[in-house]
Amino acid sequence: MRIGLVGLGTIGTGLVRALASHGALVAERLGFPLELARIADIDLERDRGVSLAGVRLSRDWVLAALDAGKHVVTANKALLATHGAEIYALAASKHTEIAFEASVGGTIPVLRALREGLCADRVLALHGIVNGTCNYILTQMEATGEPYEACLKRAQDLGYAEPDPSFDVDGVDSAHKLAILVGLAFGARLAPDAFPIDGIRRIVPADVEYAKRIGLRIKLLAVAKRAAAGIEARVHPTMIPRASVLAGVDGSMNAIEVRGELSGPTLYYGAGAGALPTASAVLSDLMELARARRDGVAGRVPPLGTPEPRDAVLCKPGEERGEYYVRFTALDKPGVLSKITGALGARGISIASVLQEERHESRGVPIVLTIHEARQADLDAALGDIARLPEVVAEAQKIRIEREL
Amino acid sequence: MRIGLVGLGTIGTGLVRALASHGALVAERLGFPLELARIADIDLERDRGVSLAGVRLSRDWVLAALDAGKHVVTANKALLATHGAEIYALAASKHTEIAFEASVGGTIPVLRALREGLCADRVLALHGIVNGTCNYILTQMEATGEPYEACLKRAQDLGYAEPDPSFDVDGVDSAHKLAILVGLAFGARLAPDAFPIDGIRRIVPADVEYAKRIGLRIKLLAVAKRAAAGIEARVHPTMIPRASVLAGVDGSMNAIEVRGELSGPTLYYGAGAGALPTASAVLSDLMELARARRDGVAGRVPPLGTPEPRDAVLCKPGEERGEYYVRFTALDKPGVLSKITGALGARGISIASVLQEERHESRGVPIVLTIHEARQADLDAALGDIARLPEVVAEAQKIRIEREL
Repeated sequence: MRIGLVGLGTIGTGLVRALASHGALVAERLGFPLELARIADIDLERDRGVSLAGVRLSRDWVLAALDAGKHVVTANKALLATHGAEIYALAASKHTEIAFEASVGGTIPVLRALREGLCADRVLALHGIVNGTCNYILTQMEATGEPYEACLKRAQDLGYAEPDPSFDVDGVDSAHKLAILVGLAFGARLAPDAFPIDGIRRIVPADVEYAKRIGLRIKLLAVAKRAAAGIEARVHPTMIPRASVLAGVDGSMNAIEVRGELSGPTLYYGAGAGALPTASAVLSDLMELARARRDGVAGRVPPLGTPEPRDAVLCKPGEERGEYYVRFTALDKPGVLSKITGALGARGISIASVLQEERHESRGVPIVLTIHEARQADLDAALGDIARLPEVVAEAQKIRIEREL
Repeated sequence: MRIGLVGLGTIGTGLVRALASHGALVAERLGFPLELARIADIDLERDRGVSLAGVRLSRDWVLAALDAGKHVVTANKALLATHGAEIYALAASKHTEIAFEASVGGTIPVLRALREGLCADRVLALHGIVNGTCNYILTQMEATGEPYEACLKRAQDLGYAEPDPSFDVDGVDSAHKLAILVGLAFGARLAPDAFPIDGIRRIVPADVEYAKRIGLRIKLLAVAKRAAAGIEARVHPTMIPRASVLAGVDGSMNAIEVRGELSGPTLYYGAGAGALPTASAVLSDLMELARARRDGVAGRVPPLGTPEPRDAVLCKPGEERGEYYVRFTALDKPGVLSKITGALGARGISIASVLQEERHESRGVPIVLTIHEARQADLDAALGDIARLPEVVAEAQKIRIEREL
């Protein structure tokens, strides 16, 4: 089978290297070789598919190839998150294959796991650490006690973060991947800008430290849950139990936990990026397509695991319920804790734990609370009330707690 | 597609329940329904495939079905570990499919991951917690400080362990699963009795406690590694770093870590047993076979991932090198530590750490050592020398340490 490669960035170059080193192994397992017949690249095209122009260009290439009856493999998550529906529909109508294992979780065969391993099951929830940059920074913040900026700098020095890190640290990349995961987990089309996205810039060492004290650890999670009213989808920093397997995922590694009705929790862990790990996933897709071509069968399993994906019905924002960690900064005056807890109580929010230490600072002391499950809109309203208290001197920090991991 | 079910034990009953609850979902995703057409069961047949008679009976059924041109799904690891080669060969010659995702790691799609997700990669090493009974007992021993017997009793009360637990706690079940995993990871046929197997009966609370103090945790691991001389395969209690993801796998859960040349480490986690989790895996196999039948394609991917599996070449026992934890029980007399370390040194074994606490017991005190990487035969020879010292009053405890996780 002859392969055309479009784009010779990190992933493209990794594929060329992997074909050189593992092409013989692939040929032995397939029964025939994969031949890299053509490579196309332009300088303008950036590797990570971050820019909209790059995504549009990729879209044109992919649609043109499918239209010409070619099977396509892509690792471009921004492309699939934005134009997936159009691409899958064209592939179906042309009886060609579109494969994209490397687009989420890098080398981890998590899309195959969802599409085929769990194909008989109904997914109830999905929690993913899908951005290695953020996970590296958060791991460093915990290991060193240093602030976000210093850890970002280290990530940049090591090549784990881009000079402009916004795409990663603001949660956009995670949102793209969540849109793809939701597609497979729920057989539902989800736009990557249709749900709340929050990044890690606002996490300070105090939050990391307080999380540790209450047996939790902060991770940027991509979350999707099946709820009565629809699908709950969101990307945000999350405090999760330190003893959970997901909390043990350190550095730039990725992991996705899937909770199914029959299967219960399963978890998939591995390198989320890197030239050779990604090439392994791309090559596995190429082998899948090579087999489809050999057998004259296309669309053996539909891209989203079901022949008729629906549009995702999302829960109404604000209606979601959850536990939260909240950190206030207030002047150390008598009665301030009472005023804060009173404001929460007035909105029906019940407090699970309070942490207030004696300090002697004129610029405000931290008051850390965790609250029992509450409606997000109620919590936000209470935080608005509290922000108007004269003793409260800084914006409250609010971080979701997820214990069912 | 019509299904015949042979054996209505835990797994068979789970499949019937799962088809009732999730059959509509399966039909939607497949585009056609799966119909449970026939069920066969005899009272003699035990559920877990433990007895040799059961395995032989299953073999006859599976071979007869394949011979009649039927696709077959089985969860019977003892059957596949013992008669896999014969079964795969018949399936290939009859152009029928044999699927067995549920045979290792229960609900976890780890065989699919090895066969298709990592199909372009060369596996370097594999470390698996594949027996939930042992993992539950070891987790309980650490959590409660209680001895093996008490924790086994609890496992039996909860239904996690059989009245006769030998098959699980002596490592035989793990060895069956390792034989299957090695088949897929290395494209190599391995007999389940061709490599060293050691269970967890000999683990005492002191070992669990000492492991904790040196930052390690004891797990029963199924290990396979690609070495220069061949494949190193073994099942034994292993001390692994507490910070590793594998060490965080608690209770009856299973996980398999695979290290690939391109992919690096990936890990697959989930329920290793249970009626519905297993049914999820069996159903996913049925859907795979239903698609093969619909498309008129069999053997899309060979059972072991390669069309020509070889016989596994195993490393020579005793030649393996590794780090070890060794615990001696010796009379508290002057010079005993010097004699023990001297005996190790005489065999070229270098000591990494020593832990000896002041105690006043006439029946012997523990002396705990960890040793740097050494040839196993050298260590065994040294332990033989040490056993002959008059101050040494009990057999030494030796546990392998694996740090590369």
